[in-house]
Amino acid sequence: MKLTILFGGASFEHEISIVSAITLKEKLSDFDLSFIFCDQDHTFYLIEDSKMKAVTFSNGEHKKMPQLTLANGAFIQKSMFSSKEHGGVFLNLIHGADGEDGSIAALLDFFSLKYIGPRIDASVFSYDKRYTKWLCDARGIKSVKYEELSIAEHDHIDIPYPVIIKPTRLGSSIGVSIVKDESELDYALDTAFEYDSNVIVEPFLQDVKEYNLAGFMANGEIHYSIVEEPQKEEFLDFEKKYMDFSRSQRVLKADISSALEKKLKKNFEKVYKNLFEGSLIRCDFFVVDSEVYLNEINPIPGSMANYLFEDFHSSLELLSNSLPLVKRAKVDYAYIHNISKAKGK
Amino acid sequence: MKLTILFGGASFEHEISIVSAITLKEKLSDFDLSFIFCDQDHTFYLIEDSKMKAVTFSNGEHKKMPQLTLANGAFIQKSMFSSKEHGGVFLNLIHGADGEDGSIAALLDFFSLKYIGPRIDASVFSYDKRYTKWLCDARGIKSVKYEELSIAEHDHIDIPYPVIIKPTRLGSSIGVSIVKDESELDYALDTAFEYDSNVIVEPFLQDVKEYNLAGFMANGEIHYSIVEEPQKEEFLDFEKKYMDFSRSQRVLKADISSALEKKLKKNFEKVYKNLFEGSLIRCDFFVVDSEVYLNEINPIPGSMANYLFEDFHSSLELLSNSLPLVKRAKVDYAYIHNISKAKGK
Repeated sequence: MKLTILFGGASFEHEISIVSAITLKEKLSDFDLSFIFCDQDHTFYLIEDSKMKAVTFSNGEHKKMPQLTLANGAFIQKSMFSSKEHGGVFLNLIHGADGEDGSIAALLDFFSLKYIGPRIDASVFSYDKRYTKWLCDARGIKSVKYEELSIAEHDHIDIPYPVIIKPTRLGSSIGVSIVKDESELDYALDTAFEYDSNVIVEPFLQDVKEYNLAGFMANGEIHYSIVEEPQKEEFLDFEKKYMDFSRSQRVLKADISSALEKKLKKNFEKVYKNLFEGSLIRCDFFVVDSEVYLNEINPIPGSMANYLFEDFHSSLELLSNSLPLVKRAKVDYAYIHNISKAKGK
Repeated sequence: MKLTILFGGASFEHEISIVSAITLKEKLSDFDLSFIFCDQDHTFYLIEDSKMKAVTFSNGEHKKMPQLTLANGAFIQKSMFSSKEHGGVFLNLIHGADGEDGSIAALLDFFSLKYIGPRIDASVFSYDKRYTKWLCDARGIKSVKYEELSIAEHDHIDIPYPVIIKPTRLGSSIGVSIVKDESELDYALDTAFEYDSNVIVEPFLQDVKEYNLAGFMANGEIHYSIVEEPQKEEFLDFEKKYMDFSRSQRVLKADISSALEKKLKKNFEKVYKNLFEGSLIRCDFFVVDSEVYLNEINPIPGSMANYLFEDFHSSLELLSNSLPLVKRAKVDYAYIHNISKAKGK
């Protein structure tokens, strides 16, 4: 299968997107893969297979490669006398800003490209943690209570310590801190406000069970990955997440009851349906007193959570053949014709 | 002031966007205006002033005009040996799909153009009527109760008749019907499902007072228009709305108490703040038993609700000088450098 991986982006997660792409290059070696890199200045480059190494980008070597521009139906590579089209199915692997905030989705939709990844609406509800809470409330999904602080207003918090502070719009634990008491609050807020002018505060849940579940919709039904109980750490900081994004080894199924597995899948479905079609997402859940809480939606999980799927190759193929396409409204100028006719009388 | 009006779009509201643009051409004749038309196939054209007439588009004459492409910081007009940049401030006047669904916002943000119009998040919460309800619930704004139906599931409704049926994602009353009893339901649903696979059902409120209020944020505070009590009709169908989009005559202030005016403004603020910055929006409210309900957010109101502002010219200037710009994350490849160094040891 032909598949073009789109990675990079002007994002704090730019580097982990590169790691993700390199991981998928190995993992999907039986696909006919191409690679398009979005530089931090929003220029697109076509990257040769042999150059899919981290140093290509850190050294700026990618700038010597062919530039691409977006046009209807394809990325276009222009040379002096000709232009070449790069079409087919794209995989949006730009983590964080650009990729997960709806920008890339809008670009690909606007130019009618087929792609795996969250659409605009889905991006908005997963990228901003406040809107994920709204989604939960509207769809009857439990989530941890929270408070919202802004850079302009953050005098005090009502949630008792320990709390966890998160920039509202970043993934990969960037800017996240656990605050054990008030003396640590200012520093944690300063850190978070470096990345976002809004943060959310949640109680830091100790002794909570965590489970991750990925899945995607194809042919009208959701195809689930195995449930993973992620490696227990206080939380994954950026460096650990960075390594996490290069995962390619299959993990073991979490040892949970079938009742809990069913509950996790039911919650996944409530998140996914009528919103995330076209994407393969990973939902991270907390379980407290056998109640399931949604912690986070990863609409473009690190290396596409390949390690959670029994047959990742077939899963991506299945999804690729079940992608939604935006229908463009047809314009017939009926009203203008009528008005012109009326005026002509 | 230099201002470029972006209009058209692949949308059921394509024609009213043309009407809106022509109206603003007259209304803002003391601006240095340019016009960029987005055709239904998503090609951009630079339209000469003298050609800003409805027939230019219905006859396809615009296709002879210079094509533009988006690039960092500007629209680019390429000719054989040179290229010309069109930058400055843009006004997104594409009503409905493309303009109000977040696509144009994403494009302009991605290429760092300055523009008046809703950003991606704001677009999602105003374009889809279900998400407007979620916004209301989250921000403590009253709205009319509703049910959601989909093309796949629409067996029955619980809300007593008469009800109003609306496609979830269209403005300008397209596909909207009032249903007086069950015998009219199927036809109304068929009509709505022509435009959207999801509809919302609301009670049809008779004898309700309606008030419209527009405004925008500049220099940290909201600048409000006058409150209008729109002309009473059962509801505005597409043809009436079409005429409505060419309004340019100032309207009279609604005759309401200052307490009610304050309440309307308070509700407007709850909708606007931390979401609609950069745009001039019109909120349409219902008032029942002196309670204010949000009916609809128009993030790109017809002809920018010019007729509601005492000094529309200065308002647009003020807003233009207070536009948010997306800050792009800087990438320094710190992690990749570290990893490469570690490997080199």
